[in-house]
Amino acid sequence: MSDVRVIIQRDSEREERVVTTGTTAADLFDGQRSVVAARVGGELKDLAYELRDGDTVEAVEISSEDGLNILRHSTAHVMAQAVQELFPEAKLGIGPPVKDGFYYDFDVERPFTPEDLKAVEKKMQEIIKRGQRFSRRVVTDEQAREELANEPYKLELIGLKGSASSEDGADVEVGAGELTIYDNLDARTGELCWKDLCRGPHLPSTRLIPAFKLMRNAAAYWRGSEKNPMLQRIYGTAWPSKDELKQYLDFLAEAEKRDHRKLGSELDLFSIPEEIGSGLAVFHPRGGIVRRVMEDYSRRRHEEEGYEFVYTPHATKGKLFEVSGHLDWYADGMYPPMQLDEGVDYYLKPMNCPMHNLIFAARGRSYRELPLRLFEFGTVYRYEKSGVVHGLTRARGFTQDDAHIYCTREQMAGELDKTLTFVLKLLRDYGLTDFYLELSTKDPEKFVGTDEAWEEATETLRQVAEKQGLPLVPDPGGAAFYGPKISVQAKDAIGRTWQMSTIQLDFNLPERFDLEYTAADGSKQRPVMIHRALFGSIERFFAVLLEHYAGAFPAWLAPVQAVGIPVGDAHVPYLEKWAAQAREKGLRVEVDSSSDRMQKKIRTAQKQKVPFMVIVGDEDMSNGSVSFRYRDGSQENGIPADEAIAKIVKVVEERAQV
Amino acid sequence: MSDVRVIIQRDSEREERVVTTGTTAADLFDGQRSVVAARVGGELKDLAYELRDGDTVEAVEISSEDGLNILRHSTAHVMAQAVQELFPEAKLGIGPPVKDGFYYDFDVERPFTPEDLKAVEKKMQEIIKRGQRFSRRVVTDEQAREELANEPYKLELIGLKGSASSEDGADVEVGAGELTIYDNLDARTGELCWKDLCRGPHLPSTRLIPAFKLMRNAAAYWRGSEKNPMLQRIYGTAWPSKDELKQYLDFLAEAEKRDHRKLGSELDLFSIPEEIGSGLAVFHPRGGIVRRVMEDYSRRRHEEEGYEFVYTPHATKGKLFEVSGHLDWYADGMYPPMQLDEGVDYYLKPMNCPMHNLIFAARGRSYRELPLRLFEFGTVYRYEKSGVVHGLTRARGFTQDDAHIYCTREQMAGELDKTLTFVLKLLRDYGLTDFYLELSTKDPEKFVGTDEAWEEATETLRQVAEKQGLPLVPDPGGAAFYGPKISVQAKDAIGRTWQMSTIQLDFNLPERFDLEYTAADGSKQRPVMIHRALFGSIERFFAVLLEHYAGAFPAWLAPVQAVGIPVGDAHVPYLEKWAAQAREKGLRVEVDSSSDRMQKKIRTAQKQKVPFMVIVGDEDMSNGSVSFRYRDGSQENGIPADEAIAKIVKVVEERAQV
Repeated sequence: MSDVRVIIQRDSEREERVVTTGTTAADLFDGQRSVVAARVGGELKDLAYELRDGDTVEAVEISSEDGLNILRHSTAHVMAQAVQELFPEAKLGIGPPVKDGFYYDFDVERPFTPEDLKAVEKKMQEIIKRGQRFSRRVVTDEQAREELANEPYKLELIGLKGSASSEDGADVEVGAGELTIYDNLDARTGELCWKDLCRGPHLPSTRLIPAFKLMRNAAAYWRGSEKNPMLQRIYGTAWPSKDELKQYLDFLAEAEKRDHRKLGSELDLFSIPEEIGSGLAVFHPRGGIVRRVMEDYSRRRHEEEGYEFVYTPHATKGKLFEVSGHLDWYADGMYPPMQLDEGVDYYLKPMNCPMHNLIFAARGRSYRELPLRLFEFGTVYRYEKSGVVHGLTRARGFTQDDAHIYCTREQMAGELDKTLTFVLKLLRDYGLTDFYLELSTKDPEKFVGTDEAWEEATETLRQVAEKQGLPLVPDPGGAAFYGPKISVQAKDAIGRTWQMSTIQLDFNLPERFDLEYTAADGSKQRPVMIHRALFGSIERFFAVLLEHYAGAFPAWLAPVQAVGIPVGDAHVPYLEKWAAQAREKGLRVEVDSSSDRMQKKIRTAQKQKVPFMVIVGDEDMSNGSVSFRYRDGSQENGIPADEAIAKIVKVVEERAQV
Repeated sequence: MSDVRVIIQRDSEREERVVTTGTTAADLFDGQRSVVAARVGGELKDLAYELRDGDTVEAVEISSEDGLNILRHSTAHVMAQAVQELFPEAKLGIGPPVKDGFYYDFDVERPFTPEDLKAVEKKMQEIIKRGQRFSRRVVTDEQAREELANEPYKLELIGLKGSASSEDGADVEVGAGELTIYDNLDARTGELCWKDLCRGPHLPSTRLIPAFKLMRNAAAYWRGSEKNPMLQRIYGTAWPSKDELKQYLDFLAEAEKRDHRKLGSELDLFSIPEEIGSGLAVFHPRGGIVRRVMEDYSRRRHEEEGYEFVYTPHATKGKLFEVSGHLDWYADGMYPPMQLDEGVDYYLKPMNCPMHNLIFAARGRSYRELPLRLFEFGTVYRYEKSGVVHGLTRARGFTQDDAHIYCTREQMAGELDKTLTFVLKLLRDYGLTDFYLELSTKDPEKFVGTDEAWEEATETLRQVAEKQGLPLVPDPGGAAFYGPKISVQAKDAIGRTWQMSTIQLDFNLPERFDLEYTAADGSKQRPVMIHRALFGSIERFFAVLLEHYAGAFPAWLAPVQAVGIPVGDAHVPYLEKWAAQAREKGLRVEVDSSSDRMQKKIRTAQKQKVPFMVIVGDEDMSNGSVSFRYRDGSQENGIPADEAIAKIVKVVEERAQV
């Protein structure tokens, strides 16, 4: 037995260790129950991996991203074993880890029922208790074919070895290297309980699955293609602890309660009528108010910041997108053309920038006019596959709060700084407070413009971003070919991250549109162009705010800011008079004069998430006062009627949350 | 010679007269030089027409609509004769009267030059002086073919007899009845000078053409079809007096000065870029301000009137327009479909109503919610042939200030009354003051709904219209099949009539969308639906106001309300300070700090039609005052600086013209 030298890497520390031949990664991390795999020379390995001389080894904690993927992947195997124990005729598809969980596809005679899922879950508990070992075995293609002769989908994958695509999940089973099978072995007898074609790695034992739950089932085409057979997919989730599982399920429940599609209907804000098509929403009057207030405030602030408002059409000759290049590199995201005037293709616009460039170019421009900031609430249409369309957050038509800034090279740094500061201030005004920034830099394979221009622009963006004192995450190579970008990521009330604003430099379009201005010395110069959208899409931002506030908009955004609730019919006229006075101050006030009883009216207002319930009974009426009830159930009595209006006006003006 | 009894009709008077056989209409109206033809039994006849027993005869005055048409038609003949005298190889197309004039088409080797037109005009003067008689002659088809053997286009028309279409003008030559040729005969010798296939009638003599002018030439396809040869068209105008001709030419010059396309470019308000396509405008920042102020004020007033604001997309599945019926009866006005998701046709919307109906139907509605007034600035796309597209007034994409009112039958009269009053008030606020109303009633051949509903609705519309005390013009049979309509016609500053607002009842869509509300008694009822657009199209109304004001918008609409003009550089900081204070009051103010001299700056501001030029020199600066110069050149000096701001604010708030 000779010695083997390995290096153990912990964060930035490196420890050299000499071990005997046959030592496994598990031996190295013995006693660290949270370690579920090893990263050896950058590659993930089972803990059973036998160390080799010169290996650099790193522990993979179950809570790390890789660790979670391994946990979930192993749980998927356990689920597949359970399914085949219960439904022996079930043929295996694939079973990869996904965000927050995993799935496995099966070819079965009928879809799984909720009872089936319960039974599978129970069987999985059993398997986990059995403590089966996951055991890796290298096989030849031929061996694999023989062993999996009963699994037609696996046989197909063996043929794909090396060319499997990560998009359809096939590469979790067959990678580019050796072909391997994972055996599930009985903890005591070592007997083979189940096996699967798989790249791994896996947990050492099913016993290390601390907490899991099956979530739902759905139909899915084999390898994602409609031409293939339809399989049945079961989704599950798995976590390093029961607490984390509970937290996740609570989060899901909370997210579901906040689902903008559900709230949109409950609060009568918008709908997506089947007659119009998915991804194309109509805003009802109440949603229309929220949207309009969002737009109005945005417009006012943009005007104060020196933006000028333009309007452009939604359709155009294809020629415009030939000039801009969109038909070359963005055609897949566009709606198909409409042929007018015998042979001219017209397109819906997927972006506003080319039209703003035409406004810039409509007449000669002088350096005195720069920076020129053209703003539009511009509705664009983008073709999204029907499968990915989701409510207002991934739509086929949406309105960008879109601006293009044309400035000189010297003005660029100042404009970027000003824009980012403005953007963050404005997002805060709408109630988002938790941000980080992302800086997308050059993809060396794909870019236009000079290295020098990219460097200057990237460095400027970095400085501008760092000045904000927010976390700055690099996104190397993530820039579009036409320029680097800062994006603002915002966390909502339940911790989800949404990409909000983007500030994008563009070295491409000013060239393509031959944009120029006359400099102070009389020479013609190319302006720098900055694209920036703050909400991104008004519809999407509306949805984000709706979910962020769980429908309980702050008063300034609320469709109804106050609802008058009379204790009895006798108090209606008093409330109507109060409401009329409040409306004169610009407030959106209703009085519930229906025949419902007071408690019912309060419940109605609460369900509608109205910020101020204004209750009036005999006492308030004789005192010339009103009482406030808030959405949290707290109450404030006997507020003089005028003061009550002033109070609401103040909350609205300050855009405060009540 | 036996007696012939005729009745002479003058307005509502009828006079019976007995004349001898052979008496002509000319004899009847002898000495009345202004009479150019006769209407006999409803049909227009030459004055040479020989009266028959039982005829009812009416004089046709040259200034009447028919008289002007005859004058212009005869002038067209004179022009054609002149052209053929000068260009003997020219072949005749057709030559009808049109609005304010006439044209004639010729097949010639090369387009006419301005010099040609001058020569033709001169020749026409000669022919008029010659006093040729127009003489009608009935011919057989065969005769006509023989006489016109050298005129291939005329020969084609002979074949069309009876089926000629009024759209391409062919029916002015060959009607449904007898085929006739008009000979131009020398006044003295009776010799044939020229002839044309023509239905007539004509003036008795070329001498009766008091005033004419050739306007321009243009290319035109024979009978309007691109498949036919291209002819050369000359347009002319003719009037009963030299004064009227001059008035007309002055009007044209004035209209040209006010052309919104010209002003739109001069004032940098909008453009229609070739890359986007005709009928699809982009609004530049200055035009954007005007449009936004127009929209904001409209929105504020609509909110005050109880309208609720919605948003709907511009594209939809075809299904929606199947439900609405637009694909049956409006497909020609729509853009062609875009096929998405493998086989689903999507369309741009030509109207907003179907989408508003979906919002109405998105949930159950109670009678308590009615009238429900849904409003949207909804951009629609309509396919107009490229030949008829005209600037912003006839566009392919435009934004309607579109509302749909859903109400009970009992509320209908009140809503119509309220709507018409509101509409007229609002148009007046924008500066139009001269209106008449038009009431379009049922086409008995083509309508949906019961007679009773039509009668009730029409009667209600009539009462509502009459209450306004404005002229009410009936338009019998002019209603769309789905309901009667009031339209508001407005005259602009130079007397042109524009159709503005329409208030349209609809008996069709509530059925098609199965719209219903729960009545007080719990039963389901169909609401009445009213379509109404006030501007019609914002782009078009923008163009109308631009032409109405000749670009000199009142201050509340003007993109720049005041421009500061320093007498010298020393006065710039004082003006900048004043401008900043004015901006704080919401005014749109610029200071011209360019290196131009003061007189140049005044000229620039005048060309930009800025309502307030605010001039400051030493005296104003030491007095803390400013001086106003108005667009008409008048001046008001030494206004205290604060007062000047207050003055402009007042003009803006009152939407006054300065």
